[in-house]
Amino acid sequence: MGLQRGGVAEEKTWPIEGVIEISFPDEETARVVYESVLYEHESVPYRRSRIEFLRDGNRIIIRFLARDNSALRGTLNSYLRWIKVAVDSLEV
Amino acid sequence: MGLQRGGVAEEKTWPIEGVIEISFPDEETARVVYESVLYEHESVPYRRSRIEFLRDGNRIIIRFLARDNSALRGTLNSYLRWIKVAVDSLEV
Repeated sequence: MGLQRGGVAEEKTWPIEGVIEISFPDEETARVVYESVLYEHESVPYRRSRIEFLRDGNRIIIRFLARDNSALRGTLNSYLRWIKVAVDSLEV
Repeated sequence: MGLQRGGVAEEKTWPIEGVIEISFPDEETARVVYESVLYEHESVPYRRSRIEFLRDGNRIIIRFLARDNSALRGTLNSYLRWIKVAVDSLEV
């Protein structure tokens, strides 16, 4: 199984892990978007998913570990939406 | 911005790639869920994202390549929803 905690076997939580990498045209754009989303990342506690939010040069990297599909969907939607908002604000 | 077609230079499409792996308790469960979602995978053409949908033992693997954030969100939501429907139908 993988993601189980506290020794309690959970029959219907199927662990999900993954990574999303977004390549920006340059490092400065990646940095601005990253810092804007980092603020949200640090503000919101996610109990059902574990997220690493990183930047490597011109790429933003989201690594995640979730206990179930719905938790993952909610989490990824939040991050992708925050990134979109940050990107849109650059384009104004 | 993102969604522009017809050979127009696309200044604001920032490529996204990634992978999601879902571990099921056993191979048989993974197989049943995989085959159910495979049907959807093969039925729906996605022009804005490229998806590889694979199974490896008890894991289902979704590899993706998207041209923009909104395309990715739509695509991932579809796959995660199909998986949820397949899983729920097993649990009845």
